[in-house]
Amino acid sequence: MEDSLNRLYETTVLKNNFNNINLFKILSLNKSEKKKIKRKQKINNDNKHLYYINSGKIMTKRNDVIISIHQEGEFVGLNALLDEENTKDEFIVVEDGLVCEFESMEALFTLLSLQEGWIYLLVQEKLRCERLIQNSICIHKNGKEKIKKIFVYLAREFGTATEKGMLLPTSFNRSLIAEYSNVTLKSLKKIIELLALEEWLEINGQKIYIKYDSIQSYV
Amino acid sequence: MEDSLNRLYETTVLKNNFNNINLFKILSLNKSEKKKIKRKQKINNDNKHLYYINSGKIMTKRNDVIISIHQEGEFVGLNALLDEENTKDEFIVVEDGLVCEFESMEALFTLLSLQEGWIYLLVQEKLRCERLIQNSICIHKNGKEKIKKIFVYLAREFGTATEKGMLLPTSFNRSLIAEYSNVTLKSLKKIIELLALEEWLEINGQKIYIKYDSIQSYV
Repeated sequence: MEDSLNRLYETTVLKNNFNNINLFKILSLNKSEKKKIKRKQKINNDNKHLYYINSGKIMTKRNDVIISIHQEGEFVGLNALLDEENTKDEFIVVEDGLVCEFESMEALFTLLSLQEGWIYLLVQEKLRCERLIQNSICIHKNGKEKIKKIFVYLAREFGTATEKGMLLPTSFNRSLIAEYSNVTLKSLKKIIELLALEEWLEINGQKIYIKYDSIQSYV
Repeated sequence: MEDSLNRLYETTVLKNNFNNINLFKILSLNKSEKKKIKRKQKINNDNKHLYYINSGKIMTKRNDVIISIHQEGEFVGLNALLDEENTKDEFIVVEDGLVCEFESMEALFTLLSLQEGWIYLLVQEKLRCERLIQNSICIHKNGKEKIKKIFVYLAREFGTATEKGMLLPTSFNRSLIAEYSNVTLKSLKKIIELLALEEWLEINGQKIYIKYDSIQSYV
């Protein structure tokens, strides 16, 4: 008992075993419905469904504030299980794609019929907290420093490696980044120009590449 | 089975049963050490101990940003169980008081030897997320509106009812509130004066009373 707990106690083991892929496998024992999602679409958040993102991106908002952005391989609406607070969240599609829609109640029963069901829920919640904390740390900076931190975060989480640096998803347009960063669109544009001049990032039309050196300079 | 899950599914039931008091009772089966805490003291966060606050207040910081403030009847360091990320957090005393220090490993073993141990951890994590989201929503406002939201939040969480309104803890001085709100001390002081003129709040030396009408106007 103590030994297996000790092994569990290691975060990496916990996060590797009780990850989204394994959770998706478990929930897939139930029926699900594949649904196309379209940019700007609001997904019904009735607390009766949860979604696994096969492709595309979805943001969750509360009181008009972007709480987090989710991508391929992640769940949306899972934290609403056992928690009515989260029904206040809005789900808005940021990038076209495909989701699997599950019934929340059925998913919950499946999950809690397993001994380790709670662990899955706990790991999900811990990941959610970590994201919120990262976001909180970014937001507490000001001006250029804040935008740099947010770009590094977005590049690490959502970027695609290219020769020029990490390319941010083109679906993350200036308005979205400004809203996420809590700065005006005008300020954001100015800071991006400045960072391009400093060769901290590179722009090409709507595309933003964050230089590898810039990313590496942040722990 | 389904019936008991349905009952569990209600958030209020979950939060009422797996609350801090019951968790404290369970952990108290282990040895613990009572320790006095002094304002500005840094509490050793070695991931080997967790704390139950009998009296006083403790804030957690990461990268110099205040993540949350904890008070009487709450745990600090509990989320570090199974999660090394949280060892990056600093614990700093905001208000003198008394804590019970538990050994983390022992607490974890006790908790996970119970069937419902995971649920306690999950509820704690959900509460942590909720706080972070509230904080995130406040921080995304600007100027006066931001300060109002933060005052309402602090009054609800930490305030003492008086004739003049909800009195904020005097340990929450202007510097702490400015840091928490991510505004300069100068701006905060200006906004407080303005809000006092508008009779949205009342000040008396260092004391800040948030009027009941002001609090009720926020959902």
